[in-house]
Amino acid sequence: MAMASNKTLFAERLAQAAELVEVRLSALLAGPSLDDTPRRLKEAMAHAVLGGGKRFRPFLVIEGAHIFGIDPANSVSAAAAVELLHCYSLVHDDLPAMDNDALRRGRPSVWKAFDEATAILAGDALLTLAFETLADPATHPNPEVRAQFVLGLARVSGASGMVGGQQLDLEAETAARADLHTAAGVQAIQDMKTGALIRFSACAGAILASATAAEVQALATYGSAIGAAFQIADDLLDAGGDATQIGKRAGKDAQAGKATWISILGIDGARARLAQLERDAATAVSVFGARSDVLAQAATFVAQRQK
Amino acid sequence: MAMASNKTLFAERLAQAAELVEVRLSALLAGPSLDDTPRRLKEAMAHAVLGGGKRFRPFLVIEGAHIFGIDPANSVSAAAAVELLHCYSLVHDDLPAMDNDALRRGRPSVWKAFDEATAILAGDALLTLAFETLADPATHPNPEVRAQFVLGLARVSGASGMVGGQQLDLEAETAARADLHTAAGVQAIQDMKTGALIRFSACAGAILASATAAEVQALATYGSAIGAAFQIADDLLDAGGDATQIGKRAGKDAQAGKATWISILGIDGARARLAQLERDAATAVSVFGARSDVLAQAATFVAQRQK
Repeated sequence: MAMASNKTLFAERLAQAAELVEVRLSALLAGPSLDDTPRRLKEAMAHAVLGGGKRFRPFLVIEGAHIFGIDPANSVSAAAAVELLHCYSLVHDDLPAMDNDALRRGRPSVWKAFDEATAILAGDALLTLAFETLADPATHPNPEVRAQFVLGLARVSGASGMVGGQQLDLEAETAARADLHTAAGVQAIQDMKTGALIRFSACAGAILASATAAEVQALATYGSAIGAAFQIADDLLDAGGDATQIGKRAGKDAQAGKATWISILGIDGARARLAQLERDAATAVSVFGARSDVLAQAATFVAQRQK
Repeated sequence: MAMASNKTLFAERLAQAAELVEVRLSALLAGPSLDDTPRRLKEAMAHAVLGGGKRFRPFLVIEGAHIFGIDPANSVSAAAAVELLHCYSLVHDDLPAMDNDALRRGRPSVWKAFDEATAILAGDALLTLAFETLADPATHPNPEVRAQFVLGLARVSGASGMVGGQQLDLEAETAARADLHTAAGVQAIQDMKTGALIRFSACAGAILASATAAEVQALATYGSAIGAAFQIADDLLDAGGDATQIGKRAGKDAQAGKATWISILGIDGARARLAQLERDAATAVSVFGARSDVLAQAATFVAQRQK
């Protein structure tokens, strides 16, 4: 019964965070800083950002901040900035020159719904809006925290983070980069491409709260574990999924000849690794006691999700 | 003789700024934050950034800061960040889905020298690196200044600034947006696409110096004037230029059916407007007395440049 009620608490908090973030994202996209934005560009940005996604990264920001007593109303702008950054990366990844995905979250991707130029520009604009939002005094009263947040987010999302990971992921499709088809190669790609931003999201609340280095580190360890778990769960879903379930073409990685956790560890090995990461995540945040129950449940959600 | 020596001073300061910025850009691209960057991505970023360009925007940042007694060594990082942002915009603008330019500064553009995916990612990485650089405590000791700089740069370069201007510029090629082929339309596109970043560059030194609002405004007025002058001079060059002189296909705007200052004002009208903007720029910075001589000379350079 305790387990069931905890699960309900997590689902409730995730839904609350998603709703808060959706409202904040809508406000940002209708806000004064976009008053002079060309209509078509604004529509493309809204298409990319609104009405979809679990908002898992913003949830981590809000829940991480909540550990330190920060009200969700005071972390939602930073959470929305992280989501803007995540959405920009999806818009650019979907482009024909990149992953060439016509579908995203069961809808036409931005380049398909608009055109390639508009999609490139919408991504650029969302990335820029993420940093604008973080630097805005309305997001946090302390400029030191704002600058630190910009610096941290830029590091995990730039050339040695998310963007670099996407570059490696594309190179992994070529025969010349067979070195990337190893466990170490797959790990490096995934750490950079998706892991770093999830880890940052988990730490973000601690940054907002000006928490101690040890507290930031505990959440970073948690974030690393769930980031890795997220990707293994993705690979497991991809191996058995269909387009209806996961909103994109199934088995695409296998078709592209990319190594995945399944091809490296096998199904059973991947499941065992996933269970270990779930335990690692829970252990990392156990220092926060009952305040981190929801984050521990989130790790279970990541490890056991069906879509 | 006084005129000649002033011109020499401007040329000297522009060359000094360019050299300082080149060194700083090289250091940023070889710095620890790019240690984990995939080699090909790093090469594409360097191709986009190093070894070309007048570095006019960084010159404005450095010279604007110099008015307030800031040593170039202490403004060059912010200046480099502005240049990174400018370079990202060129990389994305050149893409086949956008302006489809195979040449940039007389060399293959990034997508041509590498590939489209790498060019998209290199642009994303440069944009992100610009904000990372600005948020870095090494750039300025005061976090309030760093956050304000991020906010200001994001506003002029995002959906209602540079990115929005590029969107309008592309839409102006279509028959549906004949409204953009008017003086007001051309003005709006150019203000957003190039004017806003030049204006910001001119104000940037005042931000670094925590100058008064009136001082920031004087430099903003100056920046608006030279930004507009820059574009009219470009149109005049484009109307009479060839690929050797300006490093890109001449008369391209005319081919694309876009309105330009020449098509709206005629050659003589455009020249008269240019001369007026040159005077406006000099007047705006005259409040700084002799300290702004170099900036006044820069306005003359913009209005009279031959390439």
